[in-house]
Amino acid sequence: MNPSPERFSGVLSPVVTPFNVDLSPDPRRLLAQCKWLLSQNVGLAVFGTNSEANSMSVEEKMALLDYLIEGGIDPSRMMPGTGCCALTDTVRLTEHAMRFGCAGTLMLPPFYYKDVSDDGLFRSYAEVIERVASNELRIYLYHIPPIAKVGLSLDLIERLIRAYPETVVGIKDSSGDWSNTESMLQRGWDDFRIFAGAESFLLQTMRAGGAGCISATANINPAAIHKLYMEWDTDDAERLQQELNQVRELALSYPMIPALKTIVASFSGDPEWAVVRPPLVALSGTERHELLDKLKQRDFTMPGLGANRPD
Amino acid sequence: MNPSPERFSGVLSPVVTPFNVDLSPDPRRLLAQCKWLLSQNVGLAVFGTNSEANSMSVEEKMALLDYLIEGGIDPSRMMPGTGCCALTDTVRLTEHAMRFGCAGTLMLPPFYYKDVSDDGLFRSYAEVIERVASNELRIYLYHIPPIAKVGLSLDLIERLIRAYPETVVGIKDSSGDWSNTESMLQRGWDDFRIFAGAESFLLQTMRAGGAGCISATANINPAAIHKLYMEWDTDDAERLQQELNQVRELALSYPMIPALKTIVASFSGDPEWAVVRPPLVALSGTERHELLDKLKQRDFTMPGLGANRPD
Repeated sequence: MNPSPERFSGVLSPVVTPFNVDLSPDPRRLLAQCKWLLSQNVGLAVFGTNSEANSMSVEEKMALLDYLIEGGIDPSRMMPGTGCCALTDTVRLTEHAMRFGCAGTLMLPPFYYKDVSDDGLFRSYAEVIERVASNELRIYLYHIPPIAKVGLSLDLIERLIRAYPETVVGIKDSSGDWSNTESMLQRGWDDFRIFAGAESFLLQTMRAGGAGCISATANINPAAIHKLYMEWDTDDAERLQQELNQVRELALSYPMIPALKTIVASFSGDPEWAVVRPPLVALSGTERHELLDKLKQRDFTMPGLGANRPD
Repeated sequence: MNPSPERFSGVLSPVVTPFNVDLSPDPRRLLAQCKWLLSQNVGLAVFGTNSEANSMSVEEKMALLDYLIEGGIDPSRMMPGTGCCALTDTVRLTEHAMRFGCAGTLMLPPFYYKDVSDDGLFRSYAEVIERVASNELRIYLYHIPPIAKVGLSLDLIERLIRAYPETVVGIKDSSGDWSNTESMLQRGWDDFRIFAGAESFLLQTMRAGGAGCISATANINPAAIHKLYMEWDTDDAERLQQELNQVRELALSYPMIPALKTIVASFSGDPEWAVVRPPLVALSGTERHELLDKLKQRDFTMPGLGANRPD
């Protein structure tokens, strides 16, 4: 199904991270969620923005990755987020992912210092690549200016591809700006995998030669998103896209991560899934009821979710 | 000199962090810089924004702190920055600082997720305080929306002070917005120490009842800034403020951290001080010469710098 075994395509999800009531990460429920997503043909961009990855320490992420690998998750389906503020953290986490043979890493630029130059960002990625020093390293750049407030210009991306053509192999564009994705697609970078950052752009991305999408909503609506990925060139595609948009808009009328976790909690029958780490706040009781009622009215389901639920 | 031994006042500097050519932190030169700053009556807000603190891992910061303490730096003069994106990192670094009896910590809010609520930020700080669980903990909040892009509202600050009056004891206001500092000062929070985030607001801050300033430029101009702190209610104060502003504007006509490090490198006779970690970039040769020429024209000096220089 994947035309190139080395580079990703299709649908991936920044897997939501379950916390216990004491706010410690829960590896068992994360493993169950990952298994379910794989069963829905969705790859695992664990430790993304919507995984609350940046609310966890490097050690916590390494321990979760260990558990997933021990639990039998196929590293060829994993694209963990490894970009941190500190060079040394990014290197450490990326090396850990490489040790397990993860097929790619999704890499934020360092995001604390603002208004940094392309030279500085180039140097950041280059330094990570030189230090990790692995022929197997595959980096998918992570462009999410609405949150990171540090973006990746087209010129910077091109410079990275030219310097490291076998390593810098793709990007997730979470700018929310279709014209930016389109501009990247028009550059014609050889076999560079361009992913929409949300399924709302999936059809446009596929029609313009993109690779798929990496979307938080794939945590709750994976099968339908994958269906559009498979059928984007059929007559049914527009309708499928509209249906995806409706579910997305419904979920996103609430704060995104708490809403996704509330939905997973409800449909897996495991209320603890709703726990979020600060600075996020769980939905209020009223919000929760409203959201779940709206999904009920749509006959929304998540078949198979909770089947791998740990006891 | 310090009217309250428990709470800071005066001038502190986010101490610039020296890196070796291989980008590893150099504890020996940091110790020398800290000793020099103390000799100039400037306290040590190590691991601030201008320390490139967020380009270092928690482990690197812990090791530097160990070295400073072993090197004889007085923890009662230290206010290390300990606020990270991840709750667990913030707790770990804060606990480490408390182990040595640091008189305060300067604490950023978690800064990756944007548009978070006051409830979420309150919960972040509260969770750190509850976990560290030390009567000796003194938190100085760090409000720097131009860089962190996550700020602290007056209502949030007040809520934290009310909940933890002996722990949340001050703030550094790096908003660059005098009206915000003024509003805080007008709230009349009991013995709450309000520091300007730059010496350009020092005189205004002192006149309105503030505690001093925590400013990056104190790395290069400590004695003059401290002089204004001591003489703010004299006739000479306006002139002293204007002189500070001139040096500051001169340095800040270049990217701030590389400029400060270039100046320290030149005046200490140690060129390696100019090294910055990505995503920052050192000044170009031309910029360096321009900057140093301008300082020369002002007869700018840094007396005693380099006296503690390691061999």
